[in-house]
Parts: sequence; C-alpha cells; structure tokens
Amino acid sequence: MDLNFIKELTKKAETKVVLLLVDGIGGLPKTAGGKTELETAKTPNLDKLAAEGICGLHVPVGAGVTPGSGPAHLGVFGYDACKYFVGRGVLAALGIGFDLHEGDVAARGNFCTVDDAGVITDRRAGRIATEKNQALCAELSKITLSGAEVFVETVKEHRFLLVLRGKGLSGEVSETDPNKEGNPPREPVGETPDAEKTAALVKEFAEKAKTVLADHHPANMVLLRGFSQKPDWPTFGEVFGVRAAGIASYPMYRGLGKLIGMDVLETGTTLEDEFATLAERWDDFDFFYVHVKPTDSAGEDGDFDRKVAKIEAVDALVPRLMKLAPDVLVVTGDHSTPAVLKSHSWHPVPTLIWSAYCRCDGVTSFGEKACITGGLGPRIPAVELMPIAMANALRLDKYGA
Amino acid sequence: MDLNFIKELTKKAETKVVLLLVDGIGGLPKTAGGKTELETAKTPNLDKLAAEGICGLHVPVGAGVTPGSGPAHLGVFGYDACKYFVGRGVLAALGIGFDLHEGDVAARGNFCTVDDAGVITDRRAGRIATEKNQALCAELSKITLSGAEVFVETVKEHRFLLVLRGKGLSGEVSETDPNKEGNPPREPVGETPDAEKTAALVKEFAEKAKTVLADHHPANMVLLRGFSQKPDWPTFGEVFGVRAAGIASYPMYRGLGKLIGMDVLETGTTLEDEFATLAERWDDFDFFYVHVKPTDSAGEDGDFDRKVAKIEAVDALVPRLMKLAPDVLVVTGDHSTPAVLKSHSWHPVPTLIWSAYCRCDGVTSFGEKACITGGLGPRIPAVELMPIAMANALRLDKYGA
Repeated sequence: MDLNFIKELTKKAETKVVLLLVDGIGGLPKTAGGKTELETAKTPNLDKLAAEGICGLHVPVGAGVTPGSGPAHLGVFGYDACKYFVGRGVLAALGIGFDLHEGDVAARGNFCTVDDAGVITDRRAGRIATEKNQALCAELSKITLSGAEVFVETVKEHRFLLVLRGKGLSGEVSETDPNKEGNPPREPVGETPDAEKTAALVKEFAEKAKTVLADHHPANMVLLRGFSQKPDWPTFGEVFGVRAAGIASYPMYRGLGKLIGMDVLETGTTLEDEFATLAERWDDFDFFYVHVKPTDSAGEDGDFDRKVAKIEAVDALVPRLMKLAPDVLVVTGDHSTPAVLKSHSWHPVPTLIWSAYCRCDGVTSFGEKACITGGLGPRIPAVELMPIAMANALRLDKYGA
Repeated sequence: MDLNFIKELTKKAETKVVLLLVDGIGGLPKTAGGKTELETAKTPNLDKLAAEGICGLHVPVGAGVTPGSGPAHLGVFGYDACKYFVGRGVLAALGIGFDLHEGDVAARGNFCTVDDAGVITDRRAGRIATEKNQALCAELSKITLSGAEVFVETVKEHRFLLVLRGKGLSGEVSETDPNKEGNPPREPVGETPDAEKTAALVKEFAEKAKTVLADHHPANMVLLRGFSQKPDWPTFGEVFGVRAAGIASYPMYRGLGKLIGMDVLETGTTLEDEFATLAERWDDFDFFYVHVKPTDSAGEDGDFDRKVAKIEAVDALVPRLMKLAPDVLVVTGDHSTPAVLKSHSWHPVPTLIWSAYCRCDGVTSFGEKACITGGLGPRIPAVELMPIAMANALRLDKYGA
C-alpha cells in the first residue's frame, strides 16, 4: 500500500485524531525477567486507555533495525522510511526554521575538539554553551567559497547547521565525522560524479573553519554529516485528508513535522506547555502530533528511574488531553530507547489506539509484555498505524465495490 | 508470493477443501467493552472447530482499508486486490450469467428518481420490484447508439447491467452516480484519450434513457458506474490445482466465482439450499466456495440481533457440512460488517482453518477477541489463507531441494 492508495480513499469528516508520540517509550528491564521502564511506571490513565483500546507493538523500519529519529518518525507518520529518505541536514534546517531553498545542500555540523595532531578528542567539544556556539557561527558565516553561498546557523550547544546554496549542488557527499574519537575528521567524498563539486566545497569549508576556530578550544574544529536536499513528497495533510498540526519543542521534531507539511505550532519548552498549546489550538486542526522528548533523553542517558518518572509525567497529563474529547488517540513512540542500552534500539514499540470503533482486545495495562497479546499484534509495521487511526476516525472511504 | 509461485507447487491429491465464507462476519460490540455479534452468537459447532483448528484474524486488503465485496473476496481467494482489480460492471455481468465478450464494456446501472430539475431524490428509485425492472430493461434495450450494440439486463430490484459491445471501447469512463442525493447525475468522462469515444456513447445512452423513462416515476432515470472490461487472469483452478465449485445465491458472488474460473453451481436462495447443493455435488469437485450473504445484509442494516441469529443459523448447518468429511475447512468472512457501523469496515476478520494437520492453537471459541491469540495471528494478510488451506490439504509440493 502506498501513500497514493490511501490518499484516494480519504473523505471528509469532522473527527479529531491525536498522535501522542512518547519518544523512546519502549525499553528493557534492568535485569533479566524484570520490568521495563514503561512497566515500572505507574500509569493509571494509559492503562485505562489500553483497556478500552486496542494495543500492540510496532516495528519502526524493519526487523532488527535500530532507527534514527527521522526514519522512525516518518514510519509512524505513514511514510515508509526505506522509500522516503531524508538527511539529517535537512531536518536540522527545518528544525530551526531555516528557509531551505530548492537545491540547497544542508548538513548537520558539530563543533568538536581536536588535538595538535588534528585527532578528535571530543566529538561534541564539551557540549559548549549555545551562546558560545552563536559567536562561533557568526565567525564561520564569514567564510566565502567560490561557487556557493555559505550559511552557518546555531542549533543548540555543540550543534549547528551548514547550508550551501548554489547551482548544481548535490547531497551525495560522505560525512566528515568518523563517529569515534581518536581519529582525525574524514575527508568528504562525492558519492556520485555529480557530487564531486559539492564535496570539494565542503572540503574547502572544513579547512577554512579549522583556521577560523584555531583559537577557540575546545570548539576548535567542525564535523559535518547528513548532507541532503529538501525532498518533494506528498504532505501528511494531502495524504490523510486532515488539517495537521505538530506540537514539539525540540528542533528536530519541529523539522520533521514541517517536512511533511504540518503546521508546526509555537509552544514552550515543557510538556505542560505542549499540552496547553494542544488545548488552545484544538479548534483549528483535526490532527495533532504531540511530541514528548524527555523519555528518550532519559533513555539515552541510561537513567532508568528518570525515564520511569518522565513516563509517569506523561500519564498524569493524559486526562487533560482526554478532556478535549479526541475521536481517536494513538499513543506510541517512534522507537525504543532502553536505559540499559543508553541508545535507540530495534525493539518493537508499545502502541495503543483508542477510539469508539477500535475493537477492544484483552490488554488491560500499557506495557511491552501486555501489548504482545493485543489486537494490533506484536509486530505491526509502523506505517500501518496512521491508516488504522484514520479508519477509526471514519476518514477513509471503502475501496472497490 | 505471487500466484505463479503457488501454481508451480501444486500437486495432485484426492483431498477436499471447503471455504465457508460468512459475508461480513466480523463485527463490533454494541457498547464499549461488550461482545461482538459473533461473540454474542451461540456457536457450539464453530467453537468446536475453533478448538480443534487454528484461528486468527485476516486483513482483507491493507491496514485501515475498508474493502468492497470484490477486492475482499479476491483477497480471500488468494488474489491480491491491489494487483487484481476488477470493476463492478464486470462483476454484475458475470453474476447474472451474461456472456461477456472480449472488449465489451460493462457497467452497473441503478434506476433512480430525479425531480423536475433533474436532481436525484432517490438513488435506488424506492427499490422497485424486479418485475418492474424487467419491463424497463426491455424498453431500454431498444435504445440504439451509433458505434456500439446495447444490452440492458435486469439484476435485481433497482439494479441492472449495461453492456456496450463494439470496436475500440474502453472501461476508463467515470461514473455518472454522484453517490449522494440532492445532485444531478454526473456527466461521464473518458479518463484516458482512448476512452473518450466510450464516454460519449455512455452520455448518449443516459440521455436517451431519460427520455424512455420519463413517465416511469419513481424509476425515471439511470445511474451508471463501475465501467470495466473482463480481465485475463489465471483461474483459481489453475493456480491451486483444484476442480473448484462456487455455491452462492446472490449474483455478485456468483460473478466473483466465475471471474476466477470456478464452476458456479445452480442452487436455491436459502442457506439450506446452498448446503444441499454442496452435498449433492460433493463428488464432482475438490474445492468448494460456499457464500453466506444474510450475515452481511443484517450488518449493513444495522441489525445486531439479526446478524447474531444469522450466524447461529450458519452454525446450525455446520454438522451437515462436517458429515461430508472435508479434509480442510476454512471459515471466515470477506470483511467485517459491524452492525453499529451499518457498513463494511476495516477490522480484521475472524478466521479458522480446520484440518488434521492444522497444528491446533489455544483458541477454544470462535470470536474476535479469542482469535487474536490464535496461531494465524491477529493480522494475517487475506491472500495467505488459500495457500495455507491448500498446504493443509497436502496439495502443495516442497519448494526447493
């Protein structure tokens, strides 16, 4: 089933759908046979929804595949990540509201620390303050290249955005980040003949950046990756026939919403801010994507107990959401982030769909083990969730006579 | 897996397979947390088969997709509905035994009621009697077009078949049915340049029909849809290596059987008639498709209790079927038709496969919730059922050495 197939079936309806995406919600027990973060958390509100809804676990990209945030989100949004690929550079650009033009090449940059021999000693330059980042980006913006305009924009801490604007550029350039300390930055290479010009520009930029940053230890070098150009895809609103809003405080997820044409709303930095925005804008849209970041951050930090607490914080806000009376609520994550792994993982992601027509299963609590026996099954492909949600919202027409 | 793959594996066997297709069998509870129609029905015989067999729920076309009867049936028969598409006109033609020639364009017609301004006030002309339909079709058959022969045949009540026969015709013509009362009929449009000639003929027919029917209120106009030509597919018998019979009283389902080359047997109008035909012709075939319509009709009418009763009526006939000693019995539906939705739906369809070799699971009753935990899983694609049934009949050879 592709997106056009679904698009043909959409019909008008007054129903409202909420996708509450709890980033990295899936986990693992601290010790074999124990409970996961989600199973440990006291979640009376999510448990009630699980009991009334249909549950299961979704596979974000494919069996055994640990997805990054981009492909994982796109999968839940219904866009097959193997078909709809987007580079991290483009995501970073969208996330900070950078006006990416057709043909621009965007890359995600890190300030990093190199020693006198040019070997990387800290890939994140000690996570410098955002203010320092801004000062350095101002310096880097002065770099000129023959053949492309240069834009260097602060993202947060050690992260920045590089955009090259010019004719005949390509995103098919290899990253300069060796992904491990103890190595020098890599030389960028054009992965197709068309990309050789762009690779040469990137190389020139990195060399000039090294000179500009020489006296700014620990941020004395840059690493560049995720070279990419803005894709031309059908929007989420077109595909599913909804006015879609995205509510996310973190740039990456704002960017993901924008990438598929959602209206990404102004909101604050906390979960409470996001839920307040949802309530304020309830009448203006009929689909809401609400992104919850702290669960993933806790998992990435290996902090099991903090992840439990963050899940409980989400649960505590659920009644506020239900008071808005959505017709369909989907609660899931983009991927699992088990604290014991301190990273994203390949594990299927707990999922519940609640609606008047969901055909309730026997699951009575929202957790990994319970979801295995749910009606969505233990391994439903992520891309199937949105069509099911829209069907539950009575927004899809019959196929064929 | 495509049909040719299966075809290569078929081998001769003396086994007999029955597909008992209980139309629209899947449902929803009347109130949240309650029982569905199937779960409410007392079905001791189906429960026994479920306990001895392997159960699950199949997804007819794709996640969230509510299928029409055509694609839903084809899926259960093993034909991927996204690949094997057939128009409603062709189905209607086959269903009444009309001898459709290569290149004919068939359309499904409705008599409808229009007011003086030409606006549709009843898309079904009050479901006129079949006898009245016959008289009107005789009149419409006199219409002549320059460029095509015209056939107009009664189906049932307000429904008829239009066939145009001539050179260079195409089924790529848009429907004239606006699908809602309060609008005039639409003008037919050729969806490809090749189809413009056919669209013009359809337009001419509709105009002449309006004149012919002017004095026959409430049946004073026609609506035409499902323009299509007979496809050229491998037959069910070829694919699965069986002599296949279809037993169905309703034209649509007889047509579906014929479309894939089944011998569609003469039978009566009741379920008892169909089961009697099955017993009478038991020795002549080794695959039987038995279609049960009243469950779907009750669901479409929103009559929960009647659907329950019709399911119980099917259950009561199961012992008669088992007395024939089939080697494999598949009981499922083509799609779900929850009475609370009064329509087909996207929900997975309860399925059981019974044979000596099915590898029984833990399911002991035939219902939606119970089937979730069955060995076929909660979301098996419909197209996988026939290969599994044929394997259980020991009719498929080993693949590879």
